[in-house]
Amino acid sequence: MRDSFHGELSKINEILVRMTDLAQLAMDSATKALLTSDLTLAEAVISGDAQIDALHRELEERSMDLLARQQPVAVDLRTIIGGLRMVSSLERMGDLARHIATIARMRYPDCAVPDELKPIFAEAAQVADKIIAKTRDVLVERDVSLASEIAKDDDRMDALHRELFARVLDDNWAHGMEAAIDVTLLGRFYERYADHAVSLARRMVQLVTGVLPASA
Amino acid sequence: MRDSFHGELSKINEILVRMTDLAQLAMDSATKALLTSDLTLAEAVISGDAQIDALHRELEERSMDLLARQQPVAVDLRTIIGGLRMVSSLERMGDLARHIATIARMRYPDCAVPDELKPIFAEAAQVADKIIAKTRDVLVERDVSLASEIAKDDDRMDALHRELFARVLDDNWAHGMEAAIDVTLLGRFYERYADHAVSLARRMVQLVTGVLPASA
Repeated sequence: MRDSFHGELSKINEILVRMTDLAQLAMDSATKALLTSDLTLAEAVISGDAQIDALHRELEERSMDLLARQQPVAVDLRTIIGGLRMVSSLERMGDLARHIATIARMRYPDCAVPDELKPIFAEAAQVADKIIAKTRDVLVERDVSLASEIAKDDDRMDALHRELFARVLDDNWAHGMEAAIDVTLLGRFYERYADHAVSLARRMVQLVTGVLPASA
Repeated sequence: MRDSFHGELSKINEILVRMTDLAQLAMDSATKALLTSDLTLAEAVISGDAQIDALHRELEERSMDLLARQQPVAVDLRTIIGGLRMVSSLERMGDLARHIATIARMRYPDCAVPDELKPIFAEAAQVADKIIAKTRDVLVERDVSLASEIAKDDDRMDALHRELFARVLDDNWAHGMEAAIDVTLLGRFYERYADHAVSLARRMVQLVTGVLPASA
């Protein structure tokens, strides 16, 4: 019975890692779709979000079933409850990538991002990718030392987010209101995506060490 | 032991209801602070958010303790897990009210919202208030019939959100970029607040009926 229990638990962990991979891929594809006005890719991100949502439901069902049948305590209990919390963040990250793809699709064949801002979004996407890759390592390797690096990456994301506001508010802004609104919302979506990845990593650190790291 | 268990469970429910009240009050005060440029009130919302966060932690600790000590099954288990999900939405709602208050404070003594848009935000706040009040009724009275009303209220919120975009994008917009960005973000905060309240109510309906209502 304990063997099957730990088999079930590792299945739940596999789903979390799989969702992390999908959330990473979704963000990567959404950014490519956004910056290269790739309609097919944008639509793939939008329809692909259903897969993340389905894994969310599967994880919830398996967790409830495991809690009811096996009545775990101590670290096993905390692992299952922690998974239920983390899965909400992953689902939101999928949603945020989908929002970015939706803006890309809405402006097609134009690009929602003015050329001079593309490097900022490209970097925001790189930072998001770094954060989620490290979060995945925390999940898989239980390497809690990465948490402080992730917090630093997130500071960089916040700086990029502020930079976007500064550009839109600059007197030289020449791209009109629609682009300003798109850039404002897009900037927020990248920042929120990173926030969720950070909170995911913090939850995992809490599982491993028993202590929730202070938020940045 | 079962008596003390159900006492603990109703204590957890009390915390959820108390957090709902605080999230409602926070949004109400944030809107007043925003529309009347009331700095004191804005700061009260910002500092008051810590209370919602503290209740969040208390609910999580009590839930984990109850799960570990009593190993509940069936409806009791689902109630505790449901509470853990709902509390995340309530915490986010507190954050969103705080974001609104932060914009109000940032623009003080000016008002972030141009006069002609104040009625739209006032209505958005009313709709948010209606949704959270009904969500509270679902929580307290387990009146699942309210779910469809809540979905309709949320449709109204989405319409107000679209109306804000239309106003900002209108050629006659005369309030500059900063106000446009504020209005864009504020509109999103109200809409997200309502979304979280809707998801809270859906989770409660799921607890009562065993079925998660389809999202709108």
